[in-house]
Amino acid sequence: MAMFDLPLAELESYRPDVAEPDDFDDFWTGTLAEARAFDLAPTLEPVDNRLALVDTYDVSFAGAGGTPVRAWLHVPAGATGPLPTVVQYHGYSHSRGFPHSSTIWAQAGYAHLSMDTRGQGWRVGGGSSTGDASPDAGLNHAPGFMTSGILDPSTYYYRRVYTDAVRLLELTQDHPLLDARRVVVTGGSQGGGLAIAAAGLAPLAGVELAGCAPDVPFLCHFARAVALTDNHPYREIAEYLAGWRDHAEAAFRTLSYVDGVNLAKRALAPALFSVALMDATCPPSTVYAAYNHYRGADKSINVYPYNDHEGGEGYQVAAQLDWFAERFAG
Amino acid sequence: MAMFDLPLAELESYRPDVAEPDDFDDFWTGTLAEARAFDLAPTLEPVDNRLALVDTYDVSFAGAGGTPVRAWLHVPAGATGPLPTVVQYHGYSHSRGFPHSSTIWAQAGYAHLSMDTRGQGWRVGGGSSTGDASPDAGLNHAPGFMTSGILDPSTYYYRRVYTDAVRLLELTQDHPLLDARRVVVTGGSQGGGLAIAAAGLAPLAGVELAGCAPDVPFLCHFARAVALTDNHPYREIAEYLAGWRDHAEAAFRTLSYVDGVNLAKRALAPALFSVALMDATCPPSTVYAAYNHYRGADKSINVYPYNDHEGGEGYQVAAQLDWFAERFAG
Amino acid sequence: MAMFDLPLAELESYRPDVAEPDDFDDFWTGTLAEARAFDLAPTLEPVDNRLALVDTYDVSFAGAGGTPVRAWLHVPAGATGPLPTVVQYHGYSHSRGFPHSSTIWAQAGYAHLSMDTRGQGWRVGGGSSTGDASPDAGLNHAPGFMTSGILDPSTYYYRRVYTDAVRLLELTQDHPLLDARRVVVTGGSQGGGLAIAAAGLAPLAGVELAGCAPDVPFLCHFARAVALTDNHPYREIAEYLAGWRDHAEAAFRTLSYVDGVNLAKRALAPALFSVALMDATCPPSTVYAAYNHYRGADKSINVYPYNDHEGGEGYQVAAQLDWFAERFAG
Amino acid sequence: MAMFDLPLAELESYRPDVAEPDDFDDFWTGTLAEARAFDLAPTLEPVDNRLALVDTYDVSFAGAGGTPVRAWLHVPAGATGPLPTVVQYHGYSHSRGFPHSSTIWAQAGYAHLSMDTRGQGWRVGGGSSTGDASPDAGLNHAPGFMTSGILDPSTYYYRRVYTDAVRLLELTQDHPLLDARRVVVTGGSQGGGLAIAAAGLAPLAGVELAGCAPDVPFLCHFARAVALTDNHPYREIAEYLAGWRDHAEAAFRTLSYVDGVNLAKRALAPALFSVALMDATCPPSTVYAAYNHYRGADKSINVYPYNDHEGGEGYQVAAQLDWFAERFAG
Amino acid sequence: MAMFDLPLAELESYRPDVAEPDDFDDFWTGTLAEARAFDLAPTLEPVDNRLALVDTYDVSFAGAGGTPVRAWLHVPAGATGPLPTVVQYHGYSHSRGFPHSSTIWAQAGYAHLSMDTRGQGWRVGGGSSTGDASPDAGLNHAPGFMTSGILDPSTYYYRRVYTDAVRLLELTQDHPLLDARRVVVTGGSQGGGLAIAAAGLAPLAGVELAGCAPDVPFLCHFARAVALTDNHPYREIAEYLAGWRDHAEAAFRTLSYVDGVNLAKRALAPALFSVALMDATCPPSTVYAAYNHYRGADKSINVYPYNDHEGGEGYQVAAQLDWFAERFAG
Amino acid sequence: MAMFDLPLAELESYRPDVAEPDDFDDFWTGTLAEARAFDLAPTLEPVDNRLALVDTYDVSFAGAGGTPVRAWLHVPAGATGPLPTVVQYHGYSHSRGFPHSSTIWAQAGYAHLSMDTRGQGWRVGGGSSTGDASPDAGLNHAPGFMTSGILDPSTYYYRRVYTDAVRLLELTQDHPLLDARRVVVTGGSQGGGLAIAAAGLAPLAGVELAGCAPDVPFLCHFARAVALTDNHPYREIAEYLAGWRDHAEAAFRTLSYVDGVNLAKRALAPALFSVALMDATCPPSTVYAAYNHYRGADKSINVYPYNDHEGGEGYQVAAQLDWFAERFAG
Repeated sequence: MAMFDLPLAELESYRPDVAEPDDFDDFWTGTLAEARAFDLAPTLEPVDNRLALVDTYDVSFAGAGGTPVRAWLHVPAGATGPLPTVVQYHGYSHSRGFPHSSTIWAQAGYAHLSMDTRGQGWRVGGGSSTGDASPDAGLNHAPGFMTSGILDPSTYYYRRVYTDAVRLLELTQDHPLLDARRVVVTGGSQGGGLAIAAAGLAPLAGVELAGCAPDVPFLCHFARAVALTDNHPYREIAEYLAGWRDHAEAAFRTLSYVDGVNLAKRALAPALFSVALMDATCPPSTVYAAYNHYRGADKSINVYPYNDHEGGEGYQVAAQLDWFAERFAG
Repeated sequence: MAMFDLPLAELESYRPDVAEPDDFDDFWTGTLAEARAFDLAPTLEPVDNRLALVDTYDVSFAGAGGTPVRAWLHVPAGATGPLPTVVQYHGYSHSRGFPHSSTIWAQAGYAHLSMDTRGQGWRVGGGSSTGDASPDAGLNHAPGFMTSGILDPSTYYYRRVYTDAVRLLELTQDHPLLDARRVVVTGGSQGGGLAIAAAGLAPLAGVELAGCAPDVPFLCHFARAVALTDNHPYREIAEYLAGWRDHAEAAFRTLSYVDGVNLAKRALAPALFSVALMDATCPPSTVYAAYNHYRGADKSINVYPYNDHEGGEGYQVAAQLDWFAERFAG
Repeated sequence: MAMFDLPLAELESYRPDVAEPDDFDDFWTGTLAEARAFDLAPTLEPVDNRLALVDTYDVSFAGAGGTPVRAWLHVPAGATGPLPTVVQYHGYSHSRGFPHSSTIWAQAGYAHLSMDTRGQGWRVGGGSSTGDASPDAGLNHAPGFMTSGILDPSTYYYRRVYTDAVRLLELTQDHPLLDARRVVVTGGSQGGGLAIAAAGLAPLAGVELAGCAPDVPFLCHFARAVALTDNHPYREIAEYLAGWRDHAEAAFRTLSYVDGVNLAKRALAPALFSVALMDATCPPSTVYAAYNHYRGADKSINVYPYNDHEGGEGYQVAAQLDWFAERFAG
Repeated sequence: MAMFDLPLAELESYRPDVAEPDDFDDFWTGTLAEARAFDLAPTLEPVDNRLALVDTYDVSFAGAGGTPVRAWLHVPAGATGPLPTVVQYHGYSHSRGFPHSSTIWAQAGYAHLSMDTRGQGWRVGGGSSTGDASPDAGLNHAPGFMTSGILDPSTYYYRRVYTDAVRLLELTQDHPLLDARRVVVTGGSQGGGLAIAAAGLAPLAGVELAGCAPDVPFLCHFARAVALTDNHPYREIAEYLAGWRDHAEAAFRTLSYVDGVNLAKRALAPALFSVALMDATCPPSTVYAAYNHYRGADKSINVYPYNDHEGGEGYQVAAQLDWFAERFAG
Repeated sequence: MAMFDLPLAELESYRPDVAEPDDFDDFWTGTLAEARAFDLAPTLEPVDNRLALVDTYDVSFAGAGGTPVRAWLHVPAGATGPLPTVVQYHGYSHSRGFPHSSTIWAQAGYAHLSMDTRGQGWRVGGGSSTGDASPDAGLNHAPGFMTSGILDPSTYYYRRVYTDAVRLLELTQDHPLLDARRVVVTGGSQGGGLAIAAAGLAPLAGVELAGCAPDVPFLCHFARAVALTDNHPYREIAEYLAGWRDHAEAAFRTLSYVDGVNLAKRALAPALFSVALMDATCPPSTVYAAYNHYRGADKSINVYPYNDHEGGEGYQVAAQLDWFAERFAG
Repeated sequence: MAMFDLPLAELESYRPDVAEPDDFDDFWTGTLAEARAFDLAPTLEPVDNRLALVDTYDVSFAGAGGTPVRAWLHVPAGATGPLPTVVQYHGYSHSRGFPHSSTIWAQAGYAHLSMDTRGQGWRVGGGSSTGDASPDAGLNHAPGFMTSGILDPSTYYYRRVYTDAVRLLELTQDHPLLDARRVVVTGGSQGGGLAIAAAGLAPLAGVELAGCAPDVPFLCHFARAVALTDNHPYREIAEYLAGWRDHAEAAFRTLSYVDGVNLAKRALAPALFSVALMDATCPPSTVYAAYNHYRGADKSINVYPYNDHEGGEGYQVAAQLDWFAERFAG
């Protein structure tokens, strides 16, 4: 998919108006309050990850609606903490997978939290998983998770996922292995969208993040994305609206509550984005829409001109290893 | 998709062993009993279908778990009944749609019931719809409905849908517009699978059907289908198992409870099947697996050699119009 | 196919110059006069449509070159007329099909005429059909009907089809079942292009239409369409010109005589268009080119932003049911 | 398209039963007699081919129904004859093209006749062309030429084309530039099918051919081809029958009159076939069906295991140059 | 691939800035000097091309690094010369093939040189071939030849190929069969790029060409091409840079030394280009970039609006036959 | 790609005859002797991998022809050795990448060697890389590495790569960090083929391996693979032979020297294979051909029925972690 979106020079100044509901902050304040009605109830069980250099714990905590959400916590073998902490969210279809699957931030010497995305994980499998135990999960939708409950912000799938993401931040604020003052969030694609969401909602949750590193983030500027690309998962929204032609207004209203652009406007943490100019899954203009609206002034973006949605891969990991080291040292 | 499956001569005698759980009948007896714990609570509201020749009612009844399931009832304008009744189930992604969308059996002078498939309908839209209001709907699954709750027969999506299908048969047994002794079930693809399921479970529900007319039915011989075709929706199962590589046994055990082959073995009503020999969505061998195992002796199948999943379309409708007329006259 | 064409705001004012030959009106006046040299010779034979609520007649009349063209006439069972009349033209590859296939306007209480498109119908089959019995049909062309006879307007395939369409209007003006003052034309895709053509040529034929309702119409602004889309059937023209590189001028001159834009400029009847913004078969700018040039001032257009060439389907049928009722009541 | 058909060892002995109508010979005898009712009326006009080494004539003769069919005659510049003669038929979508396009057999010192396929040529263009001036050309068909007039052998497109092919053989029997005793026929794909047809009908036409060299021939064993491949042009037949589901018997009856297998059974000339084992357009089993049934005992076949429908290209031309030289020397 | 690039009116004046290294001329002067350190050592061996009208010689000469490069020389049978000479370069994947494969310019009465492209030829095969016998050929690259040695202009694959192309021009300047004052270069796609390169470097090599006729040329304006199209072979560059994300600057610096735009700026010979407006392999803007920068004032371009990368084919050959005749007569 | 190959039951006993040249062992004995003429010259330079838990060395050693081949050596931070050692080879298009990219076996407490595949790596990039510095690399071939030098076993690309693989085993036999008695080889796809090759050649090199764990291995039973699949990279061979139709015998003779089946016949180490039944890149029958011929009696294979070429991923890594632990403990 050659460079189908705006030229780089235009992307760099692309700062579109994205609809923001008047009650955006109230909605999320209410949502988080509702979630906190459930005790966070964190549990950490050591698991055998088959690795000599890393200790892994099977973490559970109360997510949206009190659903037990699972995560791995990886730390250097024998570490006691408090450790600088990297919270990783995952891409659409993925989840935390096996305890040996992804330990890069623990290898770097940090605590590494890797959160399940409720209902997902079919791409990797890997044992116990986190269902989306909500009565709203089965509302009429197109295949996939993008339109589950989309007719109302209160029933929408990502309201629950964003809540899970924030609740995991709460967990980082009160655990002896984790240094509550040195927490960064990161992830690619959906995981990048969740990192932006976490950074945007962290102030509401009273959490001060040391950094936010979204890669080729998803869930940003839905209106443009749906009009611009045929790739899934944005395409799921068009598939839904191709049938329920009368639901577009309601659906986009709901999406405005979870749009990464609106969340970026509220994010204060230093940020390191990445974007790929041939990314047909998360088009570069949708990434720049969030980046250029990102509120924190300490921000930068790595551009991969010849990549599709795989983005920077090893190159970006190297950049993040350096950047996290700086953030944690700062 | 040229003729990729067995040659017709082999199809005609293809009668594979398909796994059947020992407690199959108990499972469904229990499931239906559980459903009947909810009062059927049928409601019929006249709606404006914009048509002069047909009267349409918006029907609701208690499906699995008591979920209100919607259907249209179309009858000739001014008809009083009792009328011979055609129950139509819909293909994957479809649902009852608009009240003017599909009235063919009412045009033929019958009562025509057109049932929503819970959670679905994104292909056609059309207003009010039936959600899958089950706490199990959000269990980890691949996009689509095929693997929702697949790890246990009690949580599986199609257990609920089949239950809805049977409960609608119950509704036909006690309504002045409908002739309880002259009820046939029909549908294409998923709707054909549901017709087989309804015919197979009707004896358990104490309903005697006058006919069962599944077109290019889906939901038959899952093991072969998943191995043979890359087309959705069977493909959803492979996508799920490609990740959760350790769930194949559990998943196929669950599927054995809803396999159209096992249901066909219990169906007594006269049957008119159709099959398309170039059907890459519901491969002909999976259709013949159900047809050749179908218990009722009064059965026939129309073969469309050069068609893909569209099957016989107008040709098959003509055949059904004739066949239903015979059934109802009989 | 995401939104690949102009943005909606630009579409709404898109009114391109489209080549119009000086002798456009003479050409069509002459063509219709030539057709009228053949007696219209309408015949109506009752057929068994297997439906209780609708009576169907097998209609034949002399089309271009005197070719007998077939149509169905559906009316409410037992109706005597004169009835408001809906003339339906069909999409490329389709034809009138079976007598039970499409009766929606008869169900609404009207007379419903459904015309064969000569030579076509391979998508639906359905029994007797209308060949394109012209000595020009076999002139060198690319597969399909778009370039048959394209080197001269007098030999072009659509000259014959448009003539058939107008001759069917003539039939509506003199039959006891049909109310000559309340006739509307409609159709989707090619059927929409034919509806525009019928409305544009109706004044020449002395017919006053009560409405014209083209859905996602084909056959409009060929020059843009061929340059913009790779989808068939517009693509057939590019395929022809990719070989006969020296025939472009002649071919586009011919097309200018049948371009829906030039016919829309002459159409007086009230109009209800539809357009889909992701329509890669009949790109929205080609639809708007016809709509914005449509001469009748009483016009509106329904926009389906997230649909491809399927357009509005049930939603648009609902809109047409309402709109026809208004037209016929007016 | 890897090796999807039978293994080579099975192909070599693949000699399927192919339906042959009882009146096959009568049909063709009658057809050729009907054609001969038109005077052959050959004309040869010198044309400027822009080449120094080759003289080219624009040939016309009366084909089926008396239609003037065009061909190029290329001879070495200044040649007077009689020359050994190669008659070339062309592949589907192609035609004789420009006078400079294909002169290989003239370069080899022979007379080279290159015949237009009526109605075709859109792939190459090239100026004057041969239309299919038959009233049957516009009978209902799927896009393309494969199903034009397919419901009856007397109206079928290839009846006319085969007749053209034979009439060109007649032309070779009586012209001072051409050596009537040293005539070979050749062509690739459709051209190969026509070469087989010409060789099979030559005895009926009283022509004794010196050789027949079909490459990857089309038009052989239709029943298997249509069931086996999705590639056009065989696919056109499935597309037609997918709609007109009730026409399969009539269509295959018609095809039996033009099936290359039945024509090969009657061909006496020495033969050099070629076949490609990855040929998804003309599957190898359909080629071997004709080859193994070919009546002439002096026959061989070149096998290209790793080629799709392009077959042997330069390799096969080299083989033919050698083989024709032998035939002409013999 | 419909018209995806700039509109024709913009193309006609499209004259983009393309990076040109300061030492461009020094680089090529040095490269050619380095090549001339090897004696040209031309050899011509008569070969049996199986053709009566054309004599063919198997030519070898010392290309870049002294590698023996092969070519065919075709001349009218028995010709003695000096003959006007057409040098043909070949498209990517092609090579000189068989001696009988392509003789068009010899048929026109000229000497016809057809050069192997080192390392290539897999598309046509054809016997002896020219390897790319350079120690740099195996440097890390993406599949294909586009990125072989791309990190430095001195190791880049096309530096060697361009050198071969120029050395063949040197051969034309001193052979009794060839008229050194009447030499034109031509070719399609990669062959067109090589023709431009030969014309651009000819002045450095002291050769005065009578004409340059590139068809749909490749190897022009790489930066735009790589950003604009997903088609191979330009796509190979994006594939390389998608992995080696840090090599873009070095790669594009290397490409600037072989960019057809920079070579066109130096070409003096009269020129006849061709371009296809639907060419997704060599997008029209990249062709126009070279054409509009072409230095020679006597230039024209044939535009094929409805063609993809096949361009003008027979139409363009006809145009070239006329144009070469004029050049050689002049 | 559903299950297109043999059924599992047939796969389990699939033990085809695969051509083996008489001088197979001589060829490899000579090849290795030739390689050993170059001093192995191993160098290990510590590099900053940005990881706290792992130490990484940039390794270089003399591969085939003396080419310096690069590898990473990862060990637990501060480890001194001798450590059990896992040698990892990489999949086609991949290479060792970044020092932080793949450290799983070091995390498990082992020494982890990750070897560059000469000439490759375009998929991941990552800095310094290993070119294929052979004069034979540029011999005519189809894009990719599969046919580079394929006409003779002595010039074939994989002769060099297999030699590199064995030379790295030699390196493991004499280094203080590495336990020469506890060395296993592993890799996926091409890496799996290289693991089999290393295990098959290890006896010739005097190395006793503790295990061989190929995942979905490539480079096995070429004749079947090329006939069965259209997926690259096997497809590269068909692309080459589609042009050079006369090179098939020579090419397959060359391939017989590197066929994983012939190497497996000589492999003694305990083995853990994996295979995916929907693998269209390395079809399961080609994997089983190697597995069933594998000489070592202590062997097992993990089957992933619903996976394409991704195979077992995390599931197989878990299995390997367990299996290596057993091997190293043994």
